[in-house]
Formats: sequence, C-alpha cells, structure tokens
Amino acid sequence: MSYTTESPQKAINTGRAEAEAGFVQLIEALTCVGLATEVRHGDPGSLLIFVKTASADLLGQQVYRGRLQDWLQGVRTSGPNSDIAKVLDDEPVTEAERLRLVYQLIINPENDGGAGINQASPKWKFVADIFPLHDQPFNRAWIQKWTKKYLLDESDLDDIRNKFGESVAFYFAYLRSYFMFLTFPAAVGLIAWMSLGQFSIVYALTCGLWSVVLLEYWKKKEVDLAVQWGVRGVSAIQLSRAEYKWDYEAEDPVTGEPVKVYPYKKRLQTQLLQIPFTMACVLVLGGLVVFANSLEIFINQVYDGPGKQYLGFVPTIILVVFTPTFSTVLMKAANALTDKENYSTLDAHKAALIQKQFVLNFMTSYMALFFTGFVYIPFGDILLPFLDFWRRTAQTLTFSEKPLPTQDFRIDPKRISAQMFYFTVTAQVVNFATEVIVPYVKHKASATAKQFQSRGTHAQDHPEEAEFLKRVRDECGLEIYDVTDDYREMVMQFGYLCLFSVAWPLAACFFLINNWVELRSDGLKIAISCKRPIPWRSDSIGPWLDAIGFLSWLGSITSAAIVYLCRGAQNGHRGTTSQIAAWGLLLSVFFAENIYLLTQQLVRFVMNKVESPGLQRERRERFLMKKKLLAENLGQKVTPKAAVPGVEAGEKITRETLEEEARELSRRGHGTPQDVFWQRQRGMKDTIAIGRRMIEQQMTSDHKSSSPPKPSPKA
Amino acid sequence: MSYTTESPQKAINTGRAEAEAGFVQLIEALTCVGLATEVRHGDPGSLLIFVKTASADLLGQQVYRGRLQDWLQGVRTSGPNSDIAKVLDDEPVTEAERLRLVYQLIINPENDGGAGINQASPKWKFVADIFPLHDQPFNRAWIQKWTKKYLLDESDLDDIRNKFGESVAFYFAYLRSYFMFLTFPAAVGLIAWMSLGQFSIVYALTCGLWSVVLLEYWKKKEVDLAVQWGVRGVSAIQLSRAEYKWDYEAEDPVTGEPVKVYPYKKRLQTQLLQIPFTMACVLVLGGLVVFANSLEIFINQVYDGPGKQYLGFVPTIILVVFTPTFSTVLMKAANALTDKENYSTLDAHKAALIQKQFVLNFMTSYMALFFTGFVYIPFGDILLPFLDFWRRTAQTLTFSEKPLPTQDFRIDPKRISAQMFYFTVTAQVVNFATEVIVPYVKHKASATAKQFQSRGTHAQDHPEEAEFLKRVRDECGLEIYDVTDDYREMVMQFGYLCLFSVAWPLAACFFLINNWVELRSDGLKIAISCKRPIPWRSDSIGPWLDAIGFLSWLGSITSAAIVYLCRGAQNGHRGTTSQIAAWGLLLSVFFAENIYLLTQQLVRFVMNKVESPGLQRERRERFLMKKKLLAENLGQKVTPKAAVPGVEAGEKITRETLEEEARELSRRGHGTPQDVFWQRQRGMKDTIAIGRRMIEQQMTSDHKSSSPPKPSPKA
Repeated sequence: MSYTTESPQKAINTGRAEAEAGFVQLIEALTCVGLATEVRHGDPGSLLIFVKTASADLLGQQVYRGRLQDWLQGVRTSGPNSDIAKVLDDEPVTEAERLRLVYQLIINPENDGGAGINQASPKWKFVADIFPLHDQPFNRAWIQKWTKKYLLDESDLDDIRNKFGESVAFYFAYLRSYFMFLTFPAAVGLIAWMSLGQFSIVYALTCGLWSVVLLEYWKKKEVDLAVQWGVRGVSAIQLSRAEYKWDYEAEDPVTGEPVKVYPYKKRLQTQLLQIPFTMACVLVLGGLVVFANSLEIFINQVYDGPGKQYLGFVPTIILVVFTPTFSTVLMKAANALTDKENYSTLDAHKAALIQKQFVLNFMTSYMALFFTGFVYIPFGDILLPFLDFWRRTAQTLTFSEKPLPTQDFRIDPKRISAQMFYFTVTAQVVNFATEVIVPYVKHKASATAKQFQSRGTHAQDHPEEAEFLKRVRDECGLEIYDVTDDYREMVMQFGYLCLFSVAWPLAACFFLINNWVELRSDGLKIAISCKRPIPWRSDSIGPWLDAIGFLSWLGSITSAAIVYLCRGAQNGHRGTTSQIAAWGLLLSVFFAENIYLLTQQLVRFVMNKVESPGLQRERRERFLMKKKLLAENLGQKVTPKAAVPGVEAGEKITRETLEEEARELSRRGHGTPQDVFWQRQRGMKDTIAIGRRMIEQQMTSDHKSSSPPKPSPKA
Repeated sequence: MSYTTESPQKAINTGRAEAEAGFVQLIEALTCVGLATEVRHGDPGSLLIFVKTASADLLGQQVYRGRLQDWLQGVRTSGPNSDIAKVLDDEPVTEAERLRLVYQLIINPENDGGAGINQASPKWKFVADIFPLHDQPFNRAWIQKWTKKYLLDESDLDDIRNKFGESVAFYFAYLRSYFMFLTFPAAVGLIAWMSLGQFSIVYALTCGLWSVVLLEYWKKKEVDLAVQWGVRGVSAIQLSRAEYKWDYEAEDPVTGEPVKVYPYKKRLQTQLLQIPFTMACVLVLGGLVVFANSLEIFINQVYDGPGKQYLGFVPTIILVVFTPTFSTVLMKAANALTDKENYSTLDAHKAALIQKQFVLNFMTSYMALFFTGFVYIPFGDILLPFLDFWRRTAQTLTFSEKPLPTQDFRIDPKRISAQMFYFTVTAQVVNFATEVIVPYVKHKASATAKQFQSRGTHAQDHPEEAEFLKRVRDECGLEIYDVTDDYREMVMQFGYLCLFSVAWPLAACFFLINNWVELRSDGLKIAISCKRPIPWRSDSIGPWLDAIGFLSWLGSITSAAIVYLCRGAQNGHRGTTSQIAAWGLLLSVFFAENIYLLTQQLVRFVMNKVESPGLQRERRERFLMKKKLLAENLGQKVTPKAAVPGVEAGEKITRETLEEEARELSRRGHGTPQDVFWQRQRGMKDTIAIGRRMIEQQMTSDHKSSSPPKPSPKA
C-alpha cells in the first residue's frame, strides 16, 4: 500500500503563526473529506503529511461515485450495482484508480465533494506538492522483468495501467506499437542502403506506405485499448483548469448544470496571435539555422586559411548557445499566449501548448535538414552570394590586404547523411544521457548534500520508520514526470523517419536500437528519477495523433522532393537552378501527395472492414446490458418474439375483431365508406371464396373474348 | 387512411388451378400474421388485394416491437414503455411508420414474424407488386402549398418524413439545403460573369470555398435531422437481401445470434473486377466522346464544303444513339458485377451499384467538357493530326480527286461556354420533360387505352367503390419511385458547378432556377406519376456524400487547371504546347489542391466548435434517461452527492474507524509496520498538535543555526 503525501512548505520569514494556521487548516480540510493524516518532519523547513482514506467504506463510496459519474457521462456501458460491496467485487479497484480518486478528493473544489486544496490559490500557498509514493517492490520487479525480455506484451501494458494510470500506459502502448512497426522500415532501409543507396524511390514509397499503415493501425489500436481499459470517452470528462477566468455562467445544454462560459470570439482573437508567433519562430530559428549552416559551409568548404580546425567549431557553438536561448524565450511566449487563450479545461490548455511547442520543435529539429535537402544540395550555387558575404566579412575582420585563402566550393551530397547521423544517433545518445543519467546523478548529489546539511535533524524519527521516511524525503526531491516530453521525443523521431530518411535509409535501424533502450529508460525514469505520476486517465494519445498525421503527410511531399532534387545532384550532374526542371519537381510532389492521400483512403477502407475487437466488445456489452435490463424490468411478460402473434393468435384476432367491428357498425348504422369497404368480405374464408369466383370470371371472360394472353402492364 | 395493396398477377396460360392455389396461399399467409384482406377485380388478368392490420392492438404490438428493436440496436435512447397503450400515446405513430411496419410484416421471413411474401421466390410468382396507396387529399394540399411558397421550411420536411419516410425526406432536405446554398455562387457567378469574365481566379476560389462549406454544413445537418427524426444509427440496422448467398453460419459477435457469412476474400476477388470495369467505361465512353467531338470540330471548324449544315448533326446523332446504347450495356455489366459481389444487405448492394453508376455518369456527363477544357482550348494544335485523319477519311469517302474544301482551324474559347450552356440549361430542360411530362402523358395514354380495352369488365364494381377502385387500378400502372435517380441528378449538377463553372460562371444562376422547379417537380413526380414509395428509413444521404466530397475535391484541381490553361488561350496568345509552362500548371494545381485541403481542415475545425443541436439533444436525452433510471432503480438511497460525507460524517467516520482499528490492533498485537505508522497520531487533533510542535522545533533550530532562509528544493 502506498500513501498520498503532501509537504506544506514553510517559509521562515512569514512567521510561525501563519504557517501554523495554514497547517491546521490543511489537516482540517483533509479530515473533513474523510482522509486520515499523519505528520512527520520533512527536509528542513518542511513537513511531510501522509494521507490515506480513513476507511474501506469511504473508498468504496468514492469508487462507486466515480463509476456512477462515468456511466452518466457515457464512459461505462452499465451503471454500477447499488450494493457498494458488490461494486468492488465485480471489478476490483486498481491502484491507479484508488490513487486518482484520493488525489481528486484532495484537489476537487468543496462544492464537488473535495477538500479544495488548489496549489494555485494563495490560501494553500504552503502546499509544495501532492503526489503518491512509489511502490518500490513493484518498480524493482518491473525494471528487472523488462531488461530480460525483448518485447513488451499486453500484460506489461496492463501492469503500467494499473500502477501509473492510462495516460502513461498509452505512451508505452504507442511506443510498443511504434517499436514493432519500426522493424519493417529498418529491414527495408538496411536493404535499400546496401543495394539502392541514397534517394531511392522504392524506399520512399515503402516508407510512405508504412507511415500510413502505422497511423491507421494506431487509430484502431487506441480505441481497442481504451475499451479494454474502460476509458473510452473519458476525454469528454474534462478536468477544469483552476486558472480559468469566465465571463458569465450559463446552463449546460446536456446536464442542465451551470457552466462557466468564456466567449469563443474573445478566445479566437487571442488565438489569431498564433500566426505572428509561428512566423516569429520560423524567422528566428530558421534564420539562426541558415546563418550557422552557411557559416559552417563557408568555413569547412570554402575557407582554406589558418585556424580552420578551430574555426570549424564556431557554427556549432553558435547553434548550441543560441538555439536554447531563443527556444526558451519563444517557449515563454508560447506559455503566455496559451495562458491568455484562457482554456476552461486542462486538456484544451495542454493541447494548445503542445501545438505551439510542436512548431518550435519542428523548427529546431528539421530546419537544418530542410536547408541541406532543399537548398544546399540541389541549388548549392544560389549559396554563392551568401558565401561571398562571409568571405568579405572575414576579409574585413582580419584587416589583411591579401585575399583570404580559399578553395573551390563543391557541393557534397553526403552532408545530409552526416546530418541525419548526427540527429538520429549522436543526438539520441546525448538525449538519453540528459534524460536519465544527468537527473539521476544530480538527484544523488543533491540528496547527499541535503543529508550532509540536515545531519542530525531527523534524529527524532522513530527508528522503525527511519528508512521509510528517508525514502519519502528522497522522493520529495525528485522531478515531476511529464509524459509530454516522452511523446515529443518519439513524434520528432517519427518525423525524421518520414521526412528525411530517404536521404539516409539506415535511420530506422538506429531508431529501432534507440527505442529498445528508450522503452526501458523511460520505465527507469518513472521508477527511479521522477516522482510517481498522478495516474490520470486518457483515451488516446491526444494531440500527438494530429502531429503524427501531419508529419506523415508532409513526409510524402518532402521525400518526393528530396528524391527528385538530390538524385541528380548525387549522380554528378548537379548544377544550376535552371537545370532542375521545376515541372519535374512539381509533378513528383503532386503525384506523391495524391498517391499518399489515395493510399490513406484505401488503407482506411480496408481497415474499417475489420471491426475492432474493442468496439465489438463494447457493442456486445451494451446489447447484453439492454437485454438484461429488459428482462429485469419487464419480466417474461413481453419479449420481442411474443409480440408477434402466432398462426392461431393471428387468426383469432382477425375473426374476433371483425365480428366486433360488424356489431359496432350495425349499432352505428352504415358508417363511413371505408368501414363499408372493409365489411364486404368478412374474414379469410369470404375473401378466398370471392377471389376464386373472380378468377373464374376473368378466365371465362378472357376465353370468351379469345384475346391473346396479355403481358401485364405492371410486369 | 390508406391501405397496402397487392395485385397477384394471373398468367392465363398457367392454368386456373395454380392461380387459385397461389391466391389461397397468399390470403392465408396474410391472415396468419394478423392482416385483414379484401379482394377486388384488378385490370384484366389481375386481382387487387387490399390489406390492413386487423386491429389497433396488433398495430400497437408491431410498433412496440419495432421501437424495442430500435432501442436494442442503439437507435433510440430509451426503451419503450412496457404498457403498449402508453407507447402509442407517448409518441404517436406516423403514417410512414405504420406503412413501413405493415410492409415489413408482409415481406419479412416467417421466422422473423412476417408473412414471408418475397416476390423473388417462385412460390410468390403471382405477386406483381406490393405498395401503399397515395393519400390524395394530402398530396393535393402538399403540391398546392409548395407552388405558393418560395422556400420550403422545416415543417414541410417533417410532412414528407411523416408521409413518405426518412429516405425520401433526406433527399428533399439535401435539395433544400443545396438550393439555399446555391444563391451564393449564383450571386458571385453573376457578378463574375459581368465584371471578371470567364476563367476568373476569384470566382474559382470562392466556388471552391463554397463547396467545402456546403459539404461540411451538410454533414452536420444530416446528423441533426437524423436525431430530430429519431433515425440516427438506423443505417446500422440493415435489411438483408433476399438474393444473398452465404457460405456458412457463424455467431454474431454482438448479439450472439447466428449470422450468415460470405467470406470477405471471395468478395474482394470479385470487387477487383471493378478495375477493368472502370477502365472499360473510360475507354468506351471516353473514346466515343473524343470521336464525336473531334468529328464535330472537323465539320464545324475545318470542313467548308457542301452539306455542312446537315453534316453538323452527324456527331450529335452519333452521341445520341451510342451513348445510351453503350451505357445500357455497361449498366448491365455493373448490375451483373454487383450481383456477383453478393452483398448481404440491401444498403451495401445499393451503395456498390451507385458507385459503379457514378463512374458511368461521370464519363457521360463530364467527358466532353474535360475534352474541351483540357485538350481543345489549351492544346488545340495537338488535334491537328486527328483533324487530318478526318479530312483524309472524308476524302476517301467522297471518292473525289480534288482536295476537300476546308478553312483554317481556329480555336474558339467560347466552345466551353456553349457546352456548359447545353449541359446546364438545355439538358436540364430536356430532363425535366423526360422525367415528369413524358411519364405523365404515357401513363394517361395507357390508362385511356386500358379503359377502352376493359370497358365493361368492371361493371360489377359496387357503385360507391367504383371511383376508388378506378384510382387504385390507375396507381397500379404507375412507375416505382426511386430516389436514387433524383440524387444522381443533383450530384451531377453539383459536379458541373465544382468542376467547370469557372468556364461559365452563370451556371449557378441557371441551377438555382432549375432547382426551384426541380424541388416542385420531384414532389409532383412522387404525388402524381409514381406509386407511393415504401417509406424506408435512413440516417443520411448515404453513398452520395462520398460522391459530393470527391467532386468537390476534384473541382479544386480542375478549376485551377482550367483557369491556368484557358486564361492564356482566351487572351489571344494561345499557342503550342511548349508555350504553356508545365510547371505553372502543376504549381497552380498543387497549390489549389493544398489550399483546398487546408480550407477543409479549417472549416471542419470551426464547424466542430459549434456543437450540433441534434447531437446535443441526443446527449441530453441519454443523460436524462440515465438519471431517471438511476432514480427509479435506487430511489433516493444513494445519489452521487450523498456518497460524499459531509463535515460531520467525515469526522465521525475517521474517529470511529480509527478507534475500531485501534481495538483491532490491540487484539492482534502490534500489527504490520504500516499499521503502527498509521496508529502514531490518533485523529485530527493529534496530528495538529504534533505538527505544531514540529513547526516550532524547525523554527527554533533554524534560528539557532541562524542559516539564511533556504529556497525549497521542491519549489
């Protein structure tokens, strides 16, 4: 069992009275919603408050309430049993569900049954963080298990879901599917690299098709998993943002409850600022890349003077220094812009932020490759004035009279491979280090420092608790896990593959290796170097799906363009702009895009033929639930079949009714012409007898007039 | 009230005994399912059998059963009340629902509670047709009302729905929306025609944007209407095809009932034949158009000899003779192919057939314009060898020594306008005539002829029924209404607008006029010149939506291409192929397509912001239904709110539980370390007291060591 912990931060200078009052308020609020508390010393200047539900009954009620809400919102197919004990028996509570419910109990506003502890409000400024504790035996077993097997299976995903919630589990599920899919481009890439070389059309087509299949497969898989985990539709139940400012209240059209409204038009006006923001990103980061890359080309390929080996580092240093600087500034702008857009739900806020970050990441990740693939290799000559600018600048800077020593500028098609190698191998290794090793070392160091500082402070710990409390203080110092970063990394990797791998088909092989490690290092990160995440639910990978779709589509265009532009350059007859026929480029791009769109339709069509097992299960559940409900409510009185009269019943009804109608008629006189019409033949036997006579009449009259058999006018 | 009628056809030569046996069998089958029957003389050689439900109870049961099935299948949000009388009170039966249920009672197989009267089976070969009778007072009022108002309103659509079913109502709803949308391109087109002329970029962009908005609007509207009419999801309840052949039976994964399976692979193999079919259509019909058009160009623009005025009709005659001939043959192939594809449901069969017909219609409707827009105007010169072929052929045919009198070939950019005028005005007028006037005249003539033939035959009619029976015999001779033809006409019209109207912006104006008439003439057609249709349900315009989407997308490409190709030609500097830069064409097409796709995304995004009132209503209904169910099942015992303890309850639970736990512990000894941990502070007061002491300790120790206020490591 693990506990939810809070550590109210106590700032020394605010005075003891205020700190105490805050503390008392906190404990009271927690107790009010039925949580038991324990307090211990934290690191100097802080307390640890441990929280658990006071009783199993209370937890049961929370579970019942949560599942009832889910059913009302359409997430569950059937409402929970009214007997709470049976609810827990029917579907046991997972650790993730329990932790989520307790966390929501703490943070939900008071009118929603929670303790209303919102860290953003000044009332709770002493609350530093609220997080669940790690389940260390599980974590240890988990990591050990993963290092021993090549592939994760579905049960591993279920484990993650039960411990860390669906939001994290979806990341691992996507990573797993992506990893398995990667084997295909890796194999094709290896063959292409050995036999077809760079810029192969076959590889480009295969890779495009692959990305379409992956995307469509994942869309299905996502729904399946959501049904399996019972979270389908959960994204519609959105958590409200504490920072949201509304203009007025209105009635929710569905539930009839009051909702807070911020006019859409006002938000749209703010959203329009995204256009200048995107332009700023493109100009600043794109300019930086063009600047650094052309300088690098000048130094490496034109300049031939002294200090060349040292000067070669200058562009790299410029990039390393300015990219993060500019990114940070732009990221701040993105955050401010998103805050100003004032979304009502956490999901919408997050999606809007991710969208802006994606623009930033897109520029920093792909701009250099775009420059090489679309400017340097095909149109190297248009760089000449640029290079000349550098030559003149260098000349001016060196104040020397004699011309700068230069060599002839020759375009090197291998440049794009080298860059791809850098982005796909070097950068990923560096990334692994900064993501896992650095935080771990940093944390260990700071923990040691803290231990040194606070030596003796925790002497009052009960000896049997000492080890546990040490672990908890340790966890307090860990970073917060954000699955967004992991998604971003994988999506940008997918982008390299779709957009540029045609220039270096080995990319997928390295990604395959990287992701084998990534899958494990991400696990390790959650288990060791981060606080245990709040096990939020989700029913898809959210905004990343759009990002993947966009990259896959853009890949169809860039791959075709790179193949067309660079094949010529590679074969030696690279040359001036005019030599590359613009119509050829446009034709390949146009065809590539339309082949892509057509393939997408086809793949969707074929995939839709196969009903997803998850949806099928859901429909089956709904159907059975309704049947059960029907049986319960109506008993055996009216079933669908029984509503249809059998032969005898039908006969009886007809007879009885007709007789009754006749009696009715004789009482009322002749009735309407209609009643008279339906009274002419009383019952089946009359109709048959009269019909027989009519057939006879018609036959004899036909024979009499000896007309030939007429074709029917109604045939 | 109207009745369902059947007229079993009696072939003279099959013998009286067989006819009589068939008649008796039919009456027995109808009576068995609870239908009352009356028989009357039909036209010579046929009987009329009138059918109605024997009692209101039986009808009620059928309605109940139908609605229950709908609920089980997810079409209705709530199951019907178990009290049948109340079911009819809550939601009265419309005429369409009643007629549909009675029709289904007649045709459904016996194991499904129906009479099993399937016209395709040899057992019921005497049944010529089964159809409901027109409601003449309604029809008369309906037509009168429409001729007096400019626009239909929603209540008119509801009338159609209540009388003719949702399937027909959806056609009129689409036509109404389309008609209202048409005012926009009509206005823009008129302005463009007056001020911008042919091939205006502004007009092309406006028209493209318009088609996107129409499409996305209709997608929303469709869902709204389906919810309003209570048929959303009805397309999932599919009517099985009587002709379907299955290989084996399997269990339905959802309902658990047996389903008949035809392996998907086998069908796919047949479906692949669609590729050669499409190629055949393109070759045969495309070849015909190229043949006739080039001949026409030769005669009108090159040939200058005797008989020119008569020869000019030759190409038209060729087209008029061969287009229907070839279409009929290809249509037969399409029918055979679709039959061979062996679909299990009527909907799938119909959709597959419509798809193939669409290919045919596409070729016959647009090929001539494609030829003019993409070959004749921009690349007229490549026609020269073709024209020379005609010259040589003509020379050979005339056996004359002296060269054929010719004039210089000059390309006429007005040709496309003339063609557009033909297709949009002449063809629509002709179509109106063949669709409404010809059938009406034909029917009147044949009715007169019949009356003449059968004079005296119906002398036995009861005088008060004579008029009614005459009307019924009249209706027997009418054609069957198929909404598909009407859809096709509107979709092809939409295609002219999207694909080619840039060449003649007035098109939309004429379409607007035409559709004002069309809306009324289609109403007239249903009311006067066709049998009353079976009021089938549907929840969308089905496969036509895809067709509209395809035409709208293709329009973005063709419009851009026409603008680019023909602007030059129009301005006089038309010339050889090389003068038109291929890259310019490709660039405009590429941009146009991507602007189209981007606009589509944007429009979708914006439209999704506005939740459709229909969906909202549906969600609200579901929500209220669940709340009601909850209240009924659980009473006031457990409501979501009550599950959260208030302040007192929470306190009490905590106290009680803790005390109980303590007692439990003392009984069992010390318990686990965890139990011990949670026992240290008993209740809120303990925690507060101990926490206060800890705060005090930390403050004093801080002051003693006089360290400066540390920033929190967790900040």
